[in-house]
Amino acid sequence: MTASFAERLSSRIQRFGPLCIGIDPSNRLLAQCELPDSAEGALAFGRRVIDAVDAELPIIKPQAAYFERFGSAGWRALEQLCAHAQSAGLMVLLDGKRGDIDATADAYGDAYFGPSSTLPADAITVHAYLGYAALAGLVARARTAAAGVFVVVRSSNTEGQALQQAVTADGSSVAMALAAQISADNASHGDGAGAVGAVVGATCTDAAATVAALPQSFILAPGVGAQGATLADVAERMPQARGRVLPSVSRAILRAGADPAALKQTICQLRDQAKALLSG
Amino acid sequence: MTASFAERLSSRIQRFGPLCIGIDPSNRLLAQCELPDSAEGALAFGRRVIDAVDAELPIIKPQAAYFERFGSAGWRALEQLCAHAQSAGLMVLLDGKRGDIDATADAYGDAYFGPSSTLPADAITVHAYLGYAALAGLVARARTAAAGVFVVVRSSNTEGQALQQAVTADGSSVAMALAAQISADNASHGDGAGAVGAVVGATCTDAAATVAALPQSFILAPGVGAQGATLADVAERMPQARGRVLPSVSRAILRAGADPAALKQTICQLRDQAKALLSG
Repeated sequence: MTASFAERLSSRIQRFGPLCIGIDPSNRLLAQCELPDSAEGALAFGRRVIDAVDAELPIIKPQAAYFERFGSAGWRALEQLCAHAQSAGLMVLLDGKRGDIDATADAYGDAYFGPSSTLPADAITVHAYLGYAALAGLVARARTAAAGVFVVVRSSNTEGQALQQAVTADGSSVAMALAAQISADNASHGDGAGAVGAVVGATCTDAAATVAALPQSFILAPGVGAQGATLADVAERMPQARGRVLPSVSRAILRAGADPAALKQTICQLRDQAKALLSG
Repeated sequence: MTASFAERLSSRIQRFGPLCIGIDPSNRLLAQCELPDSAEGALAFGRRVIDAVDAELPIIKPQAAYFERFGSAGWRALEQLCAHAQSAGLMVLLDGKRGDIDATADAYGDAYFGPSSTLPADAITVHAYLGYAALAGLVARARTAAAGVFVVVRSSNTEGQALQQAVTADGSSVAMALAAQISADNASHGDGAGAVGAVVGATCTDAAATVAALPQSFILAPGVGAQGATLADVAERMPQARGRVLPSVSRAILRAGADPAALKQTICQLRDQAKALLSG
């Protein structure tokens, strides 16, 4: 039997520490790396990062938007990049923040977790503006495929706070209500770490309460580096999540991408720091 | 100078009435139509709908998820379908509910509204879980391309209501706060209909107040047909929005897709009914 998403990810975090690298081939980064602003350039950039990682991280996070801007050619590059990462032994978290209702949400589930998926991800990010319950079919497809789903609970930017802190009819915030739904879903599927993770920005100074409400979830913590948070901030703000928090760094690493040796050094440094500060 | 999104859409609504058809090639619909569950099948299905429409609708709405499930091949089919629709004279609203922060949201803008886009949409749907302000770069790109953006304000499903009705710090609901931000944005760009539309479910019995807070927005109203709302419900629930509400029907039309003649008849019937009930 295939190991569950949580078992696979936990085992890799124990081995390599928790650092997650985002692969965001923006036009600016591609120009810095003297690569063309094309699907080929985005793929070459992604391969460079994966080769520098040399499989010594638990998971990498390609950002769909940067590939989608090249249409079907970009999508093909993304498929090739994810296949390259998985054959190198890495897990892949596709960051696309998908979400919709009933049959449409199911179709997104089929896209990434279906038996005939051309882009089989180990996990994807989703949004719940249309309600967590609307994602049930998508989450079920992830579980069947031994994959995971990360729901954006609290984003790393300031513009999202008003919505995420709005108060629902039962008196809890949108973020806390979502955390409760995620946790109930994970708990109903057994003990231990669950298939449904959460995105909680490393920049949220009050993240502790949110993370405490997500006892079985992996926490993807974006906002480390260019957005201003540090790995030490993550350790301080999410102390309960040691061993299951994935601090996510993109630009702060990728801007070293012009020089493969410098890229590798930056990755190793941050990987070791993350392992020391945040391992379970 | 190219006419703005609003000018183009208003003119087409005046001519053909406001009906929008969603193109959702699910595995179930493809099977009903005896088409293969593949990118080719999805494209053939979409072409069949567009040919039956015969350009006599203002806009059609392909759903990205149903194409994305075939990966890059599905994306290629979606590009071909959108090009076919536009060369037939139709406007295209791509329903993908994208959304993210800063540079990533901008990349989605480039994907659909950039000068080198391979899938130039007349408009896309977006979600604002990460805040409306985070979409500023995406919206700016739409305006530059004389295109539009539809923000999900109130979805047609029940599962989304708790979040969308949660109360923000200033005392308004998430949906009403979003409507206010959209309206301020449209107003700051001039009189008349704006580039930023809103999704408000036809199933929301209390939609009137939300629509009243969106005086310059086109309103995409999904949920007509299979989800239970009727065109008469839209007329009753959104009386202020005559001439700028797009009732959106998918399954109730598409299930006639096995027979092109029946499909055309269903479309014409609903088109005429929508025109009679909802034109400005």
